[in-house]
Amino acid sequence: MVVVMKPQASEDQKEHVRETIRAFGCKPRDIQGDEITIICLIGNTLSLEPEQFEILDGVDRVQRIQRPYKLVSREVQPHKTRFQVGNVTIGGDGITIIAGPCSVESYDQFVEAARHARAAGAHIIRGGAFKPRTSPYSFQGLGEEGLKIMARVSEETGLPTISEVMEPEMEPMVSEYVDMLQVGARNMQNYPLLNAVGQSSRPVMLKRGMSATIEEMLLAAEYILAGGNHNVVLCERGIRTFETWTRNTLDISAVPVLQKYTHLPVFIDPSHGTGNADFVGPASRAAVAVGADGLMIEMHPRPERALSDGDQSLTPEAFASLIPELQSVATAVNRTID
Amino acid sequence: MVVVMKPQASEDQKEHVRETIRAFGCKPRDIQGDEITIICLIGNTLSLEPEQFEILDGVDRVQRIQRPYKLVSREVQPHKTRFQVGNVTIGGDGITIIAGPCSVESYDQFVEAARHARAAGAHIIRGGAFKPRTSPYSFQGLGEEGLKIMARVSEETGLPTISEVMEPEMEPMVSEYVDMLQVGARNMQNYPLLNAVGQSSRPVMLKRGMSATIEEMLLAAEYILAGGNHNVVLCERGIRTFETWTRNTLDISAVPVLQKYTHLPVFIDPSHGTGNADFVGPASRAAVAVGADGLMIEMHPRPERALSDGDQSLTPEAFASLIPELQSVATAVNRTID
Amino acid sequence: MVVVMKPQASEDQKEHVRETIRAFGCKPRDIQGDEITIICLIGNTLSLEPEQFEILDGVDRVQRIQRPYKLVSREVQPHKTRFQVGNVTIGGDGITIIAGPCSVESYDQFVEAARHARAAGAHIIRGGAFKPRTSPYSFQGLGEEGLKIMARVSEETGLPTISEVMEPEMEPMVSEYVDMLQVGARNMQNYPLLNAVGQSSRPVMLKRGMSATIEEMLLAAEYILAGGNHNVVLCERGIRTFETWTRNTLDISAVPVLQKYTHLPVFIDPSHGTGNADFVGPASRAAVAVGADGLMIEMHPRPERALSDGDQSLTPEAFASLIPELQSVATAVNRTID
Amino acid sequence: MVVVMKPQASEDQKEHVRETIRAFGCKPRDIQGDEITIICLIGNTLSLEPEQFEILDGVDRVQRIQRPYKLVSREVQPHKTRFQVGNVTIGGDGITIIAGPCSVESYDQFVEAARHARAAGAHIIRGGAFKPRTSPYSFQGLGEEGLKIMARVSEETGLPTISEVMEPEMEPMVSEYVDMLQVGARNMQNYPLLNAVGQSSRPVMLKRGMSATIEEMLLAAEYILAGGNHNVVLCERGIRTFETWTRNTLDISAVPVLQKYTHLPVFIDPSHGTGNADFVGPASRAAVAVGADGLMIEMHPRPERALSDGDQSLTPEAFASLIPELQSVATAVNRTID
Repeated sequence: MVVVMKPQASEDQKEHVRETIRAFGCKPRDIQGDEITIICLIGNTLSLEPEQFEILDGVDRVQRIQRPYKLVSREVQPHKTRFQVGNVTIGGDGITIIAGPCSVESYDQFVEAARHARAAGAHIIRGGAFKPRTSPYSFQGLGEEGLKIMARVSEETGLPTISEVMEPEMEPMVSEYVDMLQVGARNMQNYPLLNAVGQSSRPVMLKRGMSATIEEMLLAAEYILAGGNHNVVLCERGIRTFETWTRNTLDISAVPVLQKYTHLPVFIDPSHGTGNADFVGPASRAAVAVGADGLMIEMHPRPERALSDGDQSLTPEAFASLIPELQSVATAVNRTID
Repeated sequence: MVVVMKPQASEDQKEHVRETIRAFGCKPRDIQGDEITIICLIGNTLSLEPEQFEILDGVDRVQRIQRPYKLVSREVQPHKTRFQVGNVTIGGDGITIIAGPCSVESYDQFVEAARHARAAGAHIIRGGAFKPRTSPYSFQGLGEEGLKIMARVSEETGLPTISEVMEPEMEPMVSEYVDMLQVGARNMQNYPLLNAVGQSSRPVMLKRGMSATIEEMLLAAEYILAGGNHNVVLCERGIRTFETWTRNTLDISAVPVLQKYTHLPVFIDPSHGTGNADFVGPASRAAVAVGADGLMIEMHPRPERALSDGDQSLTPEAFASLIPELQSVATAVNRTID
Repeated sequence: MVVVMKPQASEDQKEHVRETIRAFGCKPRDIQGDEITIICLIGNTLSLEPEQFEILDGVDRVQRIQRPYKLVSREVQPHKTRFQVGNVTIGGDGITIIAGPCSVESYDQFVEAARHARAAGAHIIRGGAFKPRTSPYSFQGLGEEGLKIMARVSEETGLPTISEVMEPEMEPMVSEYVDMLQVGARNMQNYPLLNAVGQSSRPVMLKRGMSATIEEMLLAAEYILAGGNHNVVLCERGIRTFETWTRNTLDISAVPVLQKYTHLPVFIDPSHGTGNADFVGPASRAAVAVGADGLMIEMHPRPERALSDGDQSLTPEAFASLIPELQSVATAVNRTID
Repeated sequence: MVVVMKPQASEDQKEHVRETIRAFGCKPRDIQGDEITIICLIGNTLSLEPEQFEILDGVDRVQRIQRPYKLVSREVQPHKTRFQVGNVTIGGDGITIIAGPCSVESYDQFVEAARHARAAGAHIIRGGAFKPRTSPYSFQGLGEEGLKIMARVSEETGLPTISEVMEPEMEPMVSEYVDMLQVGARNMQNYPLLNAVGQSSRPVMLKRGMSATIEEMLLAAEYILAGGNHNVVLCERGIRTFETWTRNTLDISAVPVLQKYTHLPVFIDPSHGTGNADFVGPASRAAVAVGADGLMIEMHPRPERALSDGDQSLTPEAFASLIPELQSVATAVNRTID
């Protein structure tokens, strides 16, 4: 952290900054420029915040130098994290394909979706039992009944499952029925929930918040790892911008940026990322080409009857014809989709 | 809702749209333009979503006409909602001033803050016991101990209290100790939490999410009212934009916009809105002038020793000198701060 | 500027950074932390850019310490800039009111607007002769004919005038007819235009670009001052965000932020800032309360027949009743509107 | 366009809306819902704007149905636009690669860049002679001298050239020296410039403005086509968001969205889109996979000595090794890079 003093800062003010730095267990070190003095903090600044120094008299502003996360960092663990969800390996050379409907609506709907997903080559089946919906008047999911359907269909098809957990107290129940937990975009900074999944034995997919920076996403993952759960996947799913012709703006560059700084696998959700089935194919090809470790794609047996997100769901046919395209792109970038 | 058909849409496709509309219990009505047909839905579309029609063949896009909320609307209740928090009236002609530290750090700190707040003319004392922090390495609040301090100080000073509740299960405990609940910005779309406070007997302050639209904020409030709790205040606290010289961008216009469409009182939090004590004074004056029904201002006995948000906290002296300024502006716009 | 080296950076890489710093005429100074080395640049870094160092081997990232502008800075000139537009003083204790229609449509329309503006107490009359319009099919302004109308009406009413200049070559013509030049939001980073108005003898109002940071706005003004023209006003007019219920998001905090760092007067345009006549009154009151040095308000004799921006234009009656409200708020914050 | 009346709108107010619609040459058509009336406009609304109706008494809001552009639309021209720049075809099955340094710095630098570009397989060489720079203290380009260097190097290497034109008056000069004109992001809504290049005989690359919506980009292109120049390429180069770890957020989905609505070829600039050489490779692969018709990549013989944008420039070696990767991805999506 560097503390930039105002040009007119007095020696007393500088000394007070130095004392404050020492009080936090760090060492101050001055740099005298032509017009201004900056005072650097040497030591562990992970638990310090710039505002603790910005408030001091004579300080112009404070800039963080050390990155504020640790466990998720490539510097702590250089190799990519790899783990199993059922018999599926996440974080290897192969690209993981997760597919399924936005919501679990019935056994018939979900088993049909799962069979199509498996036939086309998907590795994991997704489905929402607890749905966070913007309007209280929208379908809110089947709840535990939905989870039971998922467990049954998983057994019948052999596909591992992923579903969203929305509150800390529900973690044990959701973990009982499904193989992997999802923390949704609206809950990326729901810290009691992050703590709860941090103590779960299930792997976790953490979706990026609608207006979360990459740094905030890494810090949210840091909560989970700090809780003891190291099997975490980060999922870019579009961020909120001024553009309205797509539901969100898919931040494709977030993949190589994240992969540079963290060892956690990085997935892309092209369905929420674009919000429109017409654009899911191109966005999925881009996701594979950019180096994503996996994709999560919404697919519904009959999108026009879907109770949620129908417009961004692929039909089983569209999904089945997309997979070979993705395999070709994967080969072109020295990855595989098996 | 209006369904805009593609120019080349066939009569069959149009008929399928009309049938789908009827299947949802609405009536279709065609408008034949020079080049395109649009099909309007007549009836209650509150629980429908545009995507349910966008997915149909031959449809170009769908636009919502009816606003998607009901209970929070001025059309349902023309007069402004008014209620009591302890002996304080919210939603009347008087502007409510809430002040206090970001976090409750100790009895001594909090009682000192409360005494300063009361002396300067604040009506309600705020303090955080459970703190949502971006980093797991930052101070996370005193928990229940903090709430106990708040209850004791409230009794001693006569000031009602407000504090944040972060998870549904904590609602009963927080409600036991404090007079008003706060749902923080990161939890604006935490639906289990909205449901929980919707069933609380305590009034609720709902803070705007960092990237929440005004419509989404109204829908989040709709959850609380739908749960049975009508004593809700909306609080604008700055939104996330590309600008980095302020912590957030205070959306001052949100106040008259909200007041046009909803009967709920609208507050402003100039501390998070700007993120810097230097700008809290001007932003507070603007908040009063624009017509806000209340302000929530961070004030700390010794900001430079605050465990969180010190840089945006006013000193007791700065706070005490701000109040008469706000009273002058209030008088100028025919409001009062008593 | 500080160059943050990677933890594994070699001594050779550090030495190369130091050499590069010296090659640019600055002095390097190392700070050795527990894990990383940072190398500070001492000297004038105004013409350097972080990327010139980020590209070097072993460098993690580079942070600017010195602010990248000079002439517009409070440090260079502590007192607020004050100048005359006709007989009107800008930058004094009085708040300047500019009013008038978006576009000059005819002599009759403009003279009527000007008489209403003068009667209500406005100091300067605005009107667009060259209009930047998003669509090529929208009304593009009367051109030079519009400027002639402005000059004639100015003579008849005694009010100075302001109008937009859209290209460098038009500066002499626009300067011939009007008293103050406006650089529009879309042209805030049109550098040939900034250079042209920098050499004009007319004062300039620089409007903030739709997605311009405060720093970029100051740098755009720096172009004008560097050209020799020091009579510049900055105008906040709303920025582009995800919110769609207002045309733009008025960044009210930009006023005190700018006033802290620059000596240039800061105005607010509540008409573009909100995009809706219903919200112009509250936003104008907030602008005065926050400390703006002036306001630019769209007012049209018959908004419903306006050829552009009718929905955000006040009627003459609404404008006339707003002024006393603004005077009351001005008094409350120790300013005047004469 | 549909005009949504307020629930309490009177019959007189509705009739006034209908009259206004007729006065603009359109036909009104009522839709009577359960609670509200909406009045549709039938006819050509291209030159009308919603605000012309929003201002009328009794109107709640107005929504545009007809898209506001015409010449750029797929409906007007179903097949993709194809044209030549020198001997290079743009808009065919082949993907066009444009490469070169941000700025032309000298003959030696530029010819070296061009030779590397040609050797690696680039089709067109880029270089800036007039540079729009945020700071007046940054290198502003060599001006006409730079254009002369480009023309000479083009002759020597056989590569066609593209360079930015920053003001309308410079169009003839720039067109004299280079084969294709670029309108930069900061000038996307510089209408006099769009008019000037609309009358040029040179093809034009229009870069997306930093905060321009896709609709605004299409309307900017509409200006150029309306001027008579139909040889236009649209270039996505990243938009401004809250994310700061990349220079811009590359909106990869804009490619299929644009391709759905317009016949103009769509390019991607991964260099500005990410702002960092480390991410240019992955973003380029994604651009090819998503279906872009071309790429514009910054490449500099010695990035660390570049006078601008060095940190996002590839070395010749990195560029040369990227091309075969892009060719593999192109093959995988049934395109070619020859």
